[in-house]
Amino acid sequence: MSLEKSAEGGTGRPAPGRVEDVRRGNLIRILASMAEARTDPDTRPTRADLATRTGLTKASVSSLVAELLDAGLLAESGTTRDGERGRPGVGLELSTSRGVVGMEINVDYIAAGLLDLGGTLRIHRTLESSNRGQSPPSVMALLGGLVRDIAAEASAAGIEILGGGLAVPGLVDSASGTVASAPNLQWRGVGLQLEQLLPSAPFGLALYNEANCAALAELWYGHGLDFRDYLFISGEVGVGGGLVIGSELFAGPRGQAGEVGHVVVEPSGPDCSCGGHGCLEAFAGQEAVFSEAGIAPGAASVRLARLGEQLAAGDAAAVAAVSRAGHYLGIAAASTARLMNLSAVVLGGHFTPMGRWIRPALQRSLAEYAPGLISDARVEISELGQSAALLGAAGSSLRAVLAAPFTLTPAGR
Amino acid sequence: MSLEKSAEGGTGRPAPGRVEDVRRGNLIRILASMAEARTDPDTRPTRADLATRTGLTKASVSSLVAELLDAGLLAESGTTRDGERGRPGVGLELSTSRGVVGMEINVDYIAAGLLDLGGTLRIHRTLESSNRGQSPPSVMALLGGLVRDIAAEASAAGIEILGGGLAVPGLVDSASGTVASAPNLQWRGVGLQLEQLLPSAPFGLALYNEANCAALAELWYGHGLDFRDYLFISGEVGVGGGLVIGSELFAGPRGQAGEVGHVVVEPSGPDCSCGGHGCLEAFAGQEAVFSEAGIAPGAASVRLARLGEQLAAGDAAAVAAVSRAGHYLGIAAASTARLMNLSAVVLGGHFTPMGRWIRPALQRSLAEYAPGLISDARVEISELGQSAALLGAAGSSLRAVLAAPFTLTPAGR
Repeated sequence: MSLEKSAEGGTGRPAPGRVEDVRRGNLIRILASMAEARTDPDTRPTRADLATRTGLTKASVSSLVAELLDAGLLAESGTTRDGERGRPGVGLELSTSRGVVGMEINVDYIAAGLLDLGGTLRIHRTLESSNRGQSPPSVMALLGGLVRDIAAEASAAGIEILGGGLAVPGLVDSASGTVASAPNLQWRGVGLQLEQLLPSAPFGLALYNEANCAALAELWYGHGLDFRDYLFISGEVGVGGGLVIGSELFAGPRGQAGEVGHVVVEPSGPDCSCGGHGCLEAFAGQEAVFSEAGIAPGAASVRLARLGEQLAAGDAAAVAAVSRAGHYLGIAAASTARLMNLSAVVLGGHFTPMGRWIRPALQRSLAEYAPGLISDARVEISELGQSAALLGAAGSSLRAVLAAPFTLTPAGR
Repeated sequence: MSLEKSAEGGTGRPAPGRVEDVRRGNLIRILASMAEARTDPDTRPTRADLATRTGLTKASVSSLVAELLDAGLLAESGTTRDGERGRPGVGLELSTSRGVVGMEINVDYIAAGLLDLGGTLRIHRTLESSNRGQSPPSVMALLGGLVRDIAAEASAAGIEILGGGLAVPGLVDSASGTVASAPNLQWRGVGLQLEQLLPSAPFGLALYNEANCAALAELWYGHGLDFRDYLFISGEVGVGGGLVIGSELFAGPRGQAGEVGHVVVEPSGPDCSCGGHGCLEAFAGQEAVFSEAGIAPGAASVRLARLGEQLAAGDAAAVAAVSRAGHYLGIAAASTARLMNLSAVVLGGHFTPMGRWIRPALQRSLAEYAPGLISDARVEISELGQSAALLGAAGSSLRAVLAAPFTLTPAGR
C-alpha cells in the first residue's frame, strides 16, 4: 500500500511516523557498526569512521551518537588516531558501564554472570546445586540470590543492568517464559517468574534453551566465527544440540529444533528420559560415560575430574567409554549433516575436557557413516567450557538491547 | 542510504527506477492473488475483486490486468457474478494457453508433462528406461525426444511453453545445472545441457532434486495444504526426502538438505551407495523391500505390482518386508522430527501403493522411539503417485513465471 501511494501520487513528504522509523533504524545501524568494530583501544571508531562505515552523513552521525551517549549505550574513550588523515578524533565504544545478566539453571549447578555491552564477561558465579526434581520456585529463589549478589557487585562497579537471559536444559516457550519440558530437571509445563529476578531492568528477561545458547556463544565467541553452518553438541547430564545455518540459529517451527540428544543411534539401545530408546543421550550423556568408564557415583564435577585423570593415565575403561560416546556422536552427526546439509561439528559442555580422546573417535565414525561429508578439520572442540550457555543467554540479551536502543533514547519515549 | 535521504531532505519524488519497481511489484501481486483464487468458473475474480484483495485502486488494477492480458499471462473467461453487489463482471483466470514443462529422470523411467498456468497437468508422458550407468547425453537425448513430442502436442492445442524444470534423484547445483552426485544413476559432477531441451522458452529451464520436487508437489497439491511443517519421504530405487518448514522447502545452506535416505538407522546395517552403511535406504529402498519380500528380479513396475498382490493376499514375507521398512522409516522420522521440530510425516513414491501396510508400522515405530511427538493423524500417504516429482518441477517453474511477469510485459522490455 505505502509503496503504491508513494509511486502513484503521494505527497512525497515522509509521514512523521516514517521519519521516526528512519531515525530508529539509523540508531540501530550505528550500534551494529560499533558491535562489529574491534575493541582494541587504538582502533576505536570515531564519528567520522562511523559515517564512512554506515554511509550516513557526518551531521546525522553526530546527532545519533549524541543520543546514544545520552542513553548510556555508547561512551567516549579518549582520543584516537584517524589512520587516513592523521587527525586525532574522539574514540567511541559500546558502554562498559551498562550490561546484561546471563543466567543458567542446569541439573547440578546454577550460574549467573554479567556481560558488559562491549562483550566482556565482567562477573561469573557458579553454585553447585542438585536441581533434579527440585521445585521450580526453590531453584528460582536460589538463582535470585545469585543474581542479587551480581547486581550488588555491578552497582558497586558503576554498571547499570539493562536486561538478561536465562538458559535451561529443556524445551522452552520464550514468549511466555514457560519450560515446556526439561526431563533431566523433571520439570514439565513450568512457568518461571523471570521478571522477579531483575524487576527494574528496562529490557526485561528472556528464557532460552541451554544448548541453543551454547551454540550461539560458540557462534559469537568461538569456532562459529569460522564455521557458518554447523551442528553444536553440548554434553551435560543430557545431550543438547544447536543447529547454526548461515551464521544464525535454526530454531525450528516451534523453537524446539536441535534435539540431537534424542536422535536414535542404536535401535535396540536402552530407555531414555524422553520416553523413547536408543537415543544418543543414552551413550554420550554424563551418566552413560561415567558408568561405562567405571567411575563411582558422586558429584558431576568430581566424576568429570576423575574421568580426566583416568583418560590421561590411559585407563582402558575410560578410553573405551569416551570412544563409544564419540562413535555414537559421529552417527548422530552424520545423520544430521545429511538431513540439514551441514559441514561442521563443534562439541562442547562435558565433551570439552574429553576432547583429545573423543574427537578422533567422532572423526572415525563420521568417516565410516558419512565419508567425505565432514572433513577432520571441521570437527572442533569448544573452548568456552561451562560458561557457554550463560554467555549465549547474555549475548542474546545484549543483541536485544542493541536492536532496540530507542527503548532508552528520546526517540522511543 | 535511500531511507535516510528520503527522511532527511530528499526531493520526495520517486526516481523513475522506483516507479518501475513498484509497477513490477504490483504485477506480481495481481498474479499472486490470481494464484490463490479458486478456479471454479463461477467464482473467477473480476478486476473489482482484485482491487479489493490487493488494496490497489481499480484504475491501477485495470492497467495492470491489461498488461498481463497482453502478455498472455491472464485471460478473460466470460462474465461472472459479483456476489456482493449482484452486478456481473468479466471473470479473469491464469492463462490456460501458456504453460510450463515438468520433467523427471529417474533410475528406471523418464517422464515429462505440461502444466498450464492455471495449475492443470494437461499432458503427462512416462517412458520406461534403465538409466543407471547410462551416459547423461544419451538419457538427455531420450528426454529431448519426449519433450519435443509434448511441445508438438502443446502447439497443436494452442499452448505456448514459457519454461520448465527437471527433477533428478541426486544432489544438484541448480545455478549451474550440474548433478553433483546421483549414486543410483551412477552420475557424478555431470553438467546437463538443459537449454537444449527447450531452447526458445523465455524463462529457461532449471534443475531440481527429485525428492524436493515431490515434497513441494505435496505442499501445493497434496497433504501439505494441511501440514505446514513436515518431513516428506519418497521411496524410489533410493529413498529421498524433503523438509517443509512454514510451508516452504528447507533446502539447507548448499541446497542439499533432506537426505533422509542416508540417516543411519542401524549402525551395524549393510553398506550403502553413499559409502556409509546402515542407512534408511538399505531397509526402505526398492531393492531392500523387494528382496526381503522374496520378489524375483525384474522391472520395478512389475515387481511393485507383484508386491501389491502379495500384500493384498496377506503373504507373510511381503507384509514383514513392508513392516520392516516402516519400522526403520519411523526411526528416521523420529530423529528428524526431534532435530528439526517437525510434527508430521508424508510418505510418497513407492510407499504410496504400500500405504495400507506401511503406515501402521511407521506409526508403531514413531510411538516407540518418539512417543507423543507425531500423532497418528499426522502420518499420511501421498496420493500424487509417480507424477509428484514432475509436478513439483513444473510447479517450481510456474512460480518462477508468476514471480517475474515483467519478463513478458512492456515493463521488463
